[in-house]
Amino acid sequence: MEDINSLINEACDWVEERLENAFDEELKDDITVQACMYSLMAGGKRIRPLLCYLSSDMLGVSKDEVLPFAAALEMIHTYSLIHDDLPAMDNDDLRRGKPTCHKRFGEGIAVLAGDCLLNRAFETVTCEVARNPSYARAAKELASLSGINGMVGGQSIDLASENKSISIDRLYELQRKKTGALLKAAVMLPYYMFETRFSDELALELSEISNCLGLSFQIKDDILDLESDVKTLGKSTGKDERDHKSTFVTLLGIEGAREELKHNIELCYTHLDNIRDMGYDVSRFEPVIAFFAGRDH
Amino acid sequence: MEDINSLINEACDWVEERLENAFDEELKDDITVQACMYSLMAGGKRIRPLLCYLSSDMLGVSKDEVLPFAAALEMIHTYSLIHDDLPAMDNDDLRRGKPTCHKRFGEGIAVLAGDCLLNRAFETVTCEVARNPSYARAAKELASLSGINGMVGGQSIDLASENKSISIDRLYELQRKKTGALLKAAVMLPYYMFETRFSDELALELSEISNCLGLSFQIKDDILDLESDVKTLGKSTGKDERDHKSTFVTLLGIEGAREELKHNIELCYTHLDNIRDMGYDVSRFEPVIAFFAGRDH
Repeated sequence: MEDINSLINEACDWVEERLENAFDEELKDDITVQACMYSLMAGGKRIRPLLCYLSSDMLGVSKDEVLPFAAALEMIHTYSLIHDDLPAMDNDDLRRGKPTCHKRFGEGIAVLAGDCLLNRAFETVTCEVARNPSYARAAKELASLSGINGMVGGQSIDLASENKSISIDRLYELQRKKTGALLKAAVMLPYYMFETRFSDELALELSEISNCLGLSFQIKDDILDLESDVKTLGKSTGKDERDHKSTFVTLLGIEGAREELKHNIELCYTHLDNIRDMGYDVSRFEPVIAFFAGRDH
Repeated sequence: MEDINSLINEACDWVEERLENAFDEELKDDITVQACMYSLMAGGKRIRPLLCYLSSDMLGVSKDEVLPFAAALEMIHTYSLIHDDLPAMDNDDLRRGKPTCHKRFGEGIAVLAGDCLLNRAFETVTCEVARNPSYARAAKELASLSGINGMVGGQSIDLASENKSISIDRLYELQRKKTGALLKAAVMLPYYMFETRFSDELALELSEISNCLGLSFQIKDDILDLESDVKTLGKSTGKDERDHKSTFVTLLGIEGAREELKHNIELCYTHLDNIRDMGYDVSRFEPVIAFFAGRDH
């Protein structure tokens, strides 16, 4: 099996050259563009482009064609981080060890930088659709998964549930929208772009695998929150629990959360087997499942 | 000549039914959706949908088809107002006599409501493009005019020029992007949607008329700022001048600004004549030029 780190590096190289040129040269002096680039190139792991890259490989579609959509997806993810970090939202001063966008550029520019990246993402994909109208469905699904029925909807539930405990069903909905939607977009976009080549059965398997991956991603995140505190503070209460935040760990218990993670990872492999049985080469996608199960922070 | 107020009412009726149903029924309880609807239905004059409506009439294209794009345009305009009003930007407590979105719902929800409307706008247009791929160019132009090369770019210049005086050339660029871009989108979208029916010469005339209209709109706004203060405060310094803001009035003087307005309105009529000469019925578009020249606040 291929090493996940070399796959991550490959996908990073692929998308980062495109992201570095996200804006035209003559805009480089614009303060909002500088704020966008600061956050866009702040060293994320590029999980969403990685999924897009490996999904394209698995489906055998052109990664050159998928690249603008993968870049747009990373722009959308980055805009959401910039806005989430604002004092009125999560009020974070640091992200990946660097000052957050509003700490570095001020709140006004940070709001505008987020807007700028979201607009630029849609400019990028609509430009591709104007070039090749068969990508229209992909653009539509991306807009749906990033909006109120997807990521924004999840952020809304999150803001409305602040300092409240929520039911496990509501937590599943929150996760499915807030973090799950863009991960689903990452897996599904290569399918939507070339959907006439594929069957509805394949769409279903991809959708299921992206759901299970997204859920695994979040449960693992919640477990890591607890474990990192046990390790560094020597006590078994994580930041989430102290913040009275409902997570898979606080609602299911640590053992319950580990069970749910294990169950979802097994489901990922089941759906991957189904895709293999349809004749697709899943060998490069497989390592990402183990990565999602065991990923360090 | 038709009465502008009946045209405004007609265009309002046209777009507002669509805006009232901007979100699915099952989302009506979501707090972010409520904030979106609060701002979206706050009683704007719907200038951009009006231009879209009258441009469609002039070009003889289906207003039913144009409607989703006009609604998306108004969503984009509304998101920009919500974010502009935030404390980190213009810090306005009131808009059209009502508390601004963040005053009513809090800053976090207001940031998210803006994001939600922008996403929804693109979901709306990409949905239309998926239905009819010939609208791809229109979606692309809308994204371009609302982003860093359009409205967002203008907001960026505006933020970067706070408490600074800027050159008249820079002010033209700011206006062209910040307020001009969406007004241009309003006039041009019906053209782009059905561009195969039209000539490049028509595009040029429409582009020129939208530039002149946009500039007139802003100059008139700057003149009204001064005049309203002369009227209500009895002194001839407007809010803009007291804020040390560069406007067409502060940079050209009140007489220079009136001259520039008059010149641009004359240009509007010239380009409208050119469009009439191409065989289009401009009779319903004409009143909007007089409205832009004399519009009250």
